[in-house]
Amino acid sequence: MKQSERPAVVLLSGGLDSATTAAIAREGGYALNAITFLYGQRHAIETAAAQRVAGAIGVAQHVFQHVDLRALGGSALTGDIDVPKSRSAAEMLSGVPVTYVPARNTIFLSLALAYAEIVGALDIFIGVNAVDFSGYPDCRPAFITAFEQLANLATKRGSEGARFSIHAPLIYMSKAEIIRRGIALGVDYSITHSCYDPSVEGLACGQCDSCILRRRGFDEAGIADPIRYATAK
Amino acid sequence: MKQSERPAVVLLSGGLDSATTAAIAREGGYALNAITFLYGQRHAIETAAAQRVAGAIGVAQHVFQHVDLRALGGSALTGDIDVPKSRSAAEMLSGVPVTYVPARNTIFLSLALAYAEIVGALDIFIGVNAVDFSGYPDCRPAFITAFEQLANLATKRGSEGARFSIHAPLIYMSKAEIIRRGIALGVDYSITHSCYDPSVEGLACGQCDSCILRRRGFDEAGIADPIRYATAK
Repeated sequence: MKQSERPAVVLLSGGLDSATTAAIAREGGYALNAITFLYGQRHAIETAAAQRVAGAIGVAQHVFQHVDLRALGGSALTGDIDVPKSRSAAEMLSGVPVTYVPARNTIFLSLALAYAEIVGALDIFIGVNAVDFSGYPDCRPAFITAFEQLANLATKRGSEGARFSIHAPLIYMSKAEIIRRGIALGVDYSITHSCYDPSVEGLACGQCDSCILRRRGFDEAGIADPIRYATAK
Repeated sequence: MKQSERPAVVLLSGGLDSATTAAIAREGGYALNAITFLYGQRHAIETAAAQRVAGAIGVAQHVFQHVDLRALGGSALTGDIDVPKSRSAAEMLSGVPVTYVPARNTIFLSLALAYAEIVGALDIFIGVNAVDFSGYPDCRPAFITAFEQLANLATKRGSEGARFSIHAPLIYMSKAEIIRRGIALGVDYSITHSCYDPSVEGLACGQCDSCILRRRGFDEAGIADPIRYATAK
């Protein structure tokens, strides 16, 4: 870590959005402390993608935090819901998606906040997006602002007068804008993983909301998506 | 669960404060869904105490949530710090205690919030106290209020117009007042566990901050503490 680099924490899932968010933070001169959450059923694929992205972008430290929410019950937490397929944009944007996990980003940001205090960071980067995922309450700007206020009240650093910043640089960007920005920053999207329902070989399904949004984003950006899909568009 | 009982979530450590908080919630007519966090080194003792308290008070459901924070580093998280002993009240109240765990109550309340959404509860009870534990930033009333605001922004229920309440009924009470209230509600304090540093046999040390506050509380309340200690007062 260069002396001039301030530490930051970045939530890194191994997906397109968090890879771009990490690249933006890196470009901003931060030394990155990446945190990856393992809470679902597809640990191996997600872990591998997050490791590849962390390696490619260059992080000071990378931790994996298990948060097995299955003890709480609720099928959406366990990964055994039916992932909706081939939905239109209108369907995706109506109401809270079935893939909503109760309080997920609150849980993730809380753990990221603990990590930030431990590594001495006041800046936390999260790749939430309020455009393509407007149905998720915890992707909205008001949620991010409220968490930032909470962080300052919740912590030793905050109680001593330091101020945390929750950075959500993608929050108002379209998927195509995110991809163009990432390409400009040198992000290798071939190593990212976005699919909610990959095949046993790890191939993206091409039909879940996440795959549809990703493919449409590459189309709109006029860039070829470097990953392989199990199904044609 | 009686039809008239609304569900609530209560954070239950098996300690004196959370046992009293659960009794207050029960007295308020709620059906209790207890959540116990396992994050430290003394799982067995804490689990047993929480189970005893849940059984004695009568809960609809009791879940145990593992949150192993050791992956994040930071010795305060792992339980291998030296627990301070035989401190005066002034020493306890100066600054943030070494037993502070970064963002602990934010993490716990986030997971309790997920649990509340899953069981359909809007009321969450937590036994934080701003009198005896004024050094912990995440025991202050402003923190509780900020989390309540966040909860409404963070969740499906909140985004649909429902309003969460974070109840901290002990927040302004002295330890003696908490004990008197608990006794009036029939809490059996002989089954609770408060010590930060119990012996291998599970005996309370009598000298850590938590033991000192507990013993002083019973003294001030004029009630005999029914648990055994490894050391005399």
